[in-house]
Amino acid sequence: MQLGIIGLGRMGMNMGLRLQGRDIDVLGYDASSSARSAAEKEGLTCASSLADFVKGLAAPRAVWLMVPAGVTEKVLDELAEVLDRDDVVIDGGNGFYRDDQTHAATLATRGIHHLDAGTSGGVWGRERGYCLMVGGERDIFDRLEKIFAALAPGVESAPRTDSTSSIRQAELGYLYCGDHGAGHFVKMVHNGIEYGMMASLAEGLAILEGADIGSRAQDASAEVAPLHDPTAYQYDIPVAEVAELWRRGSVVASWLLDLAADALRRDPTLDSFQGRVSDSGEGRWTVNAAIDEGIPAPTIASSLFARFSSQGHAAFSDRVLSALRKEFGGHDELPGS
Amino acid sequence: MQLGIIGLGRMGMNMGLRLQGRDIDVLGYDASSSARSAAEKEGLTCASSLADFVKGLAAPRAVWLMVPAGVTEKVLDELAEVLDRDDVVIDGGNGFYRDDQTHAATLATRGIHHLDAGTSGGVWGRERGYCLMVGGERDIFDRLEKIFAALAPGVESAPRTDSTSSIRQAELGYLYCGDHGAGHFVKMVHNGIEYGMMASLAEGLAILEGADIGSRAQDASAEVAPLHDPTAYQYDIPVAEVAELWRRGSVVASWLLDLAADALRRDPTLDSFQGRVSDSGEGRWTVNAAIDEGIPAPTIASSLFARFSSQGHAAFSDRVLSALRKEFGGHDELPGS
Amino acid sequence: MQLGIIGLGRMGMNMGLRLQGRDIDVLGYDASSSARSAAEKEGLTCASSLADFVKGLAAPRAVWLMVPAGVTEKVLDELAEVLDRDDVVIDGGNGFYRDDQTHAATLATRGIHHLDAGTSGGVWGRERGYCLMVGGERDIFDRLEKIFAALAPGVESAPRTDSTSSIRQAELGYLYCGDHGAGHFVKMVHNGIEYGMMASLAEGLAILEGADIGSRAQDASAEVAPLHDPTAYQYDIPVAEVAELWRRGSVVASWLLDLAADALRRDPTLDSFQGRVSDSGEGRWTVNAAIDEGIPAPTIASSLFARFSSQGHAAFSDRVLSALRKEFGGHDELPGS
Amino acid sequence: MQLGIIGLGRMGMNMGLRLQGRDIDVLGYDASSSARSAAEKEGLTCASSLADFVKGLAAPRAVWLMVPAGVTEKVLDELAEVLDRDDVVIDGGNGFYRDDQTHAATLATRGIHHLDAGTSGGVWGRERGYCLMVGGERDIFDRLEKIFAALAPGVESAPRTDSTSSIRQAELGYLYCGDHGAGHFVKMVHNGIEYGMMASLAEGLAILEGADIGSRAQDASAEVAPLHDPTAYQYDIPVAEVAELWRRGSVVASWLLDLAADALRRDPTLDSFQGRVSDSGEGRWTVNAAIDEGIPAPTIASSLFARFSSQGHAAFSDRVLSALRKEFGGHDELPGS
Repeated sequence: MQLGIIGLGRMGMNMGLRLQGRDIDVLGYDASSSARSAAEKEGLTCASSLADFVKGLAAPRAVWLMVPAGVTEKVLDELAEVLDRDDVVIDGGNGFYRDDQTHAATLATRGIHHLDAGTSGGVWGRERGYCLMVGGERDIFDRLEKIFAALAPGVESAPRTDSTSSIRQAELGYLYCGDHGAGHFVKMVHNGIEYGMMASLAEGLAILEGADIGSRAQDASAEVAPLHDPTAYQYDIPVAEVAELWRRGSVVASWLLDLAADALRRDPTLDSFQGRVSDSGEGRWTVNAAIDEGIPAPTIASSLFARFSSQGHAAFSDRVLSALRKEFGGHDELPGS
Repeated sequence: MQLGIIGLGRMGMNMGLRLQGRDIDVLGYDASSSARSAAEKEGLTCASSLADFVKGLAAPRAVWLMVPAGVTEKVLDELAEVLDRDDVVIDGGNGFYRDDQTHAATLATRGIHHLDAGTSGGVWGRERGYCLMVGGERDIFDRLEKIFAALAPGVESAPRTDSTSSIRQAELGYLYCGDHGAGHFVKMVHNGIEYGMMASLAEGLAILEGADIGSRAQDASAEVAPLHDPTAYQYDIPVAEVAELWRRGSVVASWLLDLAADALRRDPTLDSFQGRVSDSGEGRWTVNAAIDEGIPAPTIASSLFARFSSQGHAAFSDRVLSALRKEFGGHDELPGS
Repeated sequence: MQLGIIGLGRMGMNMGLRLQGRDIDVLGYDASSSARSAAEKEGLTCASSLADFVKGLAAPRAVWLMVPAGVTEKVLDELAEVLDRDDVVIDGGNGFYRDDQTHAATLATRGIHHLDAGTSGGVWGRERGYCLMVGGERDIFDRLEKIFAALAPGVESAPRTDSTSSIRQAELGYLYCGDHGAGHFVKMVHNGIEYGMMASLAEGLAILEGADIGSRAQDASAEVAPLHDPTAYQYDIPVAEVAELWRRGSVVASWLLDLAADALRRDPTLDSFQGRVSDSGEGRWTVNAAIDEGIPAPTIASSLFARFSSQGHAAFSDRVLSALRKEFGGHDELPGS
Repeated sequence: MQLGIIGLGRMGMNMGLRLQGRDIDVLGYDASSSARSAAEKEGLTCASSLADFVKGLAAPRAVWLMVPAGVTEKVLDELAEVLDRDDVVIDGGNGFYRDDQTHAATLATRGIHHLDAGTSGGVWGRERGYCLMVGGERDIFDRLEKIFAALAPGVESAPRTDSTSSIRQAELGYLYCGDHGAGHFVKMVHNGIEYGMMASLAEGLAILEGADIGSRAQDASAEVAPLHDPTAYQYDIPVAEVAELWRRGSVVASWLLDLAADALRRDPTLDSFQGRVSDSGEGRWTVNAAIDEGIPAPTIASSLFARFSSQGHAAFSDRVLSALRKEFGGHDELPGS
């Protein structure tokens, strides 16, 4: 089996290397020559032009895109020109699921197939395997199943939910989710859940970190809510140790907790971070989808809005509040903390 | 009718002046001589010591406290020493309703009565009248009703809800709400609603202010969610004009909107504010009460948490999120905005 | 000045009647003959067919659409066939602002103009006036300004924010907000704020209503969170009286509060309602816009999600939670309340 | 080492059995004779009266309480009468951390020690081990460490975060967290995080489940927000398979996801549940603590409020909203779903 990969950033390169180690013949390409060099240095075979890339793959070709969402359209246009009828493009990036519907329709006019493959795994995927959520035509998915299987973590990567039953596809770490866009739809929701879980963890750890507030000097200004029971908040909780603790036997045990324990172990106050939390689209789309469906998603939405605030985007809203307090109560703002 | 007022800040002084203009004999006192001087300059009669203050009032006395919640207890202790059986203390500050139960019980051991009077009106109350929510013994409330009536805005300050019925007490702008603490409980919830209404308005105005985001240069980084339809966000909405507009005939017409229109008229971008929004306790107590009662209050809670964030208190939580993103995806933080 | 109105439901008919009383020559039309009859009975002149309607208006015509969002497109298509170059269609319904951009472009191919006019005022507008937020070409807006002025409440309907300045357009109760869609965009955000304000009020009143929970019998099951301080929740707050009270002198005074006071006066427990709260699109669009702009809107979003929950749409999510509690703790669900 | 356990429900009995299997000499007691019989049938040695229980333990005794929070106080009072100076009571239930401070002080007057031990593990703990968060006097904790070690999962139950370092206490699955109450404080926050994670998962799965809404018949009423892009929501996502899939290689891999996959495997639509989600106190306390500390916790709070709503406690609030919609727009409620 052969796969071409376009986009040799962290993700694309690592996926290629994982596949090469599992009997898939991989050819890489990236518009950036430095990305190509880096990938070749790691041992990935690369083509030096798109033309060579296409030539290097036997028809019907399978081409995996691992490029930023912003350039996907451009790369698809270029590919449409050079690929042949019955070739397949798999979009493995974090694309918007509705765009898959459009992309698939456009490519279909030339007989080219399109799969969308939501891909989770981040920097750990090369070793740990990638969780794959795939949408598109079922028979095209079937044709390439060997590739998905090689990328995925495999059944042994987690204890079986029901060890008495035969193995289901999902247990292998990849899944055909439905028609065009279904893969990215499921990946989108996955990231929405990720936002909510991360925020839950972050809020909880912050409450632990603040449990000594009763020991700190209190401001007596009428502008500051007084702490009613300072004696109830005089704990000096070892937050990093708690994160490590919960990894064993607790209900919140999770991969995100593993990562939190690791980050806190190395930097217990996390002072190496500013706290400007980016969001890259999937959280937004998830909440928009919830709204379109009329499904309440207050938890995920809260986690999204907290990121916006961390980016400084509550600024105007906050100024309105301060202005109103000044208007009705004559309250002057306290200096920022 | 005679009333002593302790605490001659903005609120206490203005209440005294309003009462003096309405045939109530007022005697003021403040531990700060400069506060006393300021009040006297405005025309308020003041005592120069607590002893003189008490002597200046005929028994049974009525003493209105208008002091910061943090010093209430201290002043009540002092008053307990100098007041006589059957005197009344009215706590008009933003006290915690549960403290009223304790204060009333303590004063009762000396035969002194206690009323809690939640007071809304801010800097506008002198002219507009104060909305009063009163808790305590019903007959003590009745004894002092003339004072509440003089402070309150009166029936003519709003169109009658049902002009065919006889006038209810609430229509006069004051209300006996129940036993000790009931007044502050109702005031607490009033402020919780105020938080939520303010936040609704602030968020909406911010969405209007941001309606030109599609016209601004977009960052193409994978760390920034791309705007899918920039052409849908190219409006340059005149936010200050909209706030003024909604004051007439719209569903959101409100006193808070009046104030927003005024603030935006004077400073359309509100650049004179930093956006650090204080909270002084009632919002916190409201959400805590909702939780104790098992009543969902997501809207009010959201508005409270937004204030905490504006105060910089999401810092640790946000750093946890950035640390997690670095762990699983190798994402570096973007520079702060 | 002459105006044709299509759609003679509650809103359209009342707008026509208000205009007729203010020297605007109105011709109504509705596809439903019973709607036409009802309007005629109220005194509105109506055409009995679309052809007669168009014939009855002098060119260049102005036609106000007041139809449900779902049929707007169909009516616009019909109108495009029968109107002439330089005629104007004003969409006064609760349309999605992006559709205005499309509608305007389509009509423009025939030289027909399009304005979008967000309209607030509900059943009270005929008497109180309609708050109008208008988008489209500025000169077309100017051409029809007399109509907007007649529909709007006028400057005298609220105290002036700054009585020393000359009167601004917004003070008249209508506003040109910007290009195509700007009117509906502003109306959309208005409704978003309305959702948030309504929810703040509703939550607060519910907390008052629940203030007697400490007096009620407590369930001692491990499945029910025990009330820690039952003595703190033994108030029997007169909720309807409180709503009336706050109308005078309080910070939350607002038209929505006026309406709450009226509803509670007539039915203090609101038992005539089930609590299934509809949403008609604008709240959804507001939150989606906030997300697209990257602006945190947790308060408005919370109010939207509460409506979804009231409609029963948290059902699957809630079953997942119960299933998880059963899985990790063996907890059986309590019977529903 | 010897331990007495009072409270032989699911948790207490399983903890006793786990300890017996690990060389701890256990004596159980429960006020209910049927609970005692059940435990004895499982192989646990039990005393048939409190007096026998105390007699059966060698001084200084260690007594682990595993009783519902509601009866803790009563049992502590009984124990105070029969225990001796230097005995230790460990409260392993889900108590409120502030009560630990009181309980410890009361027992201290008799020279009896108190530890609070937040215990996670649920029905799985006997086999998987219990995650233990302990507060109280450090030397008393040290005295009983062997017991905590036997209950805890042990270092081998998760991959080590840093395999090169020496083993920290937290890695063994138990942790001394600080002074009286610290153990229950950390457990409280653990459960708060659990609420948020559960809700994130539940909301996400619900969005997947609703992804076919565009295929369902749409209601055209003005009371129902129309779906703008029905073609974007025509997926029939296999939710149970997705939950299984994410267990391997995804960012949301977690014990809660394992449980969700198991629950959905057995009942893909979860129709065996009603969706009335109980809460047992810790979520409430977590949000109250966040508020006291001034730390934003919107995500955890949202998850708490969603439970309240599922219990039917949004009823009054929702009726207020319906009443307001009726007032300003004449909207009648739609029939409930």
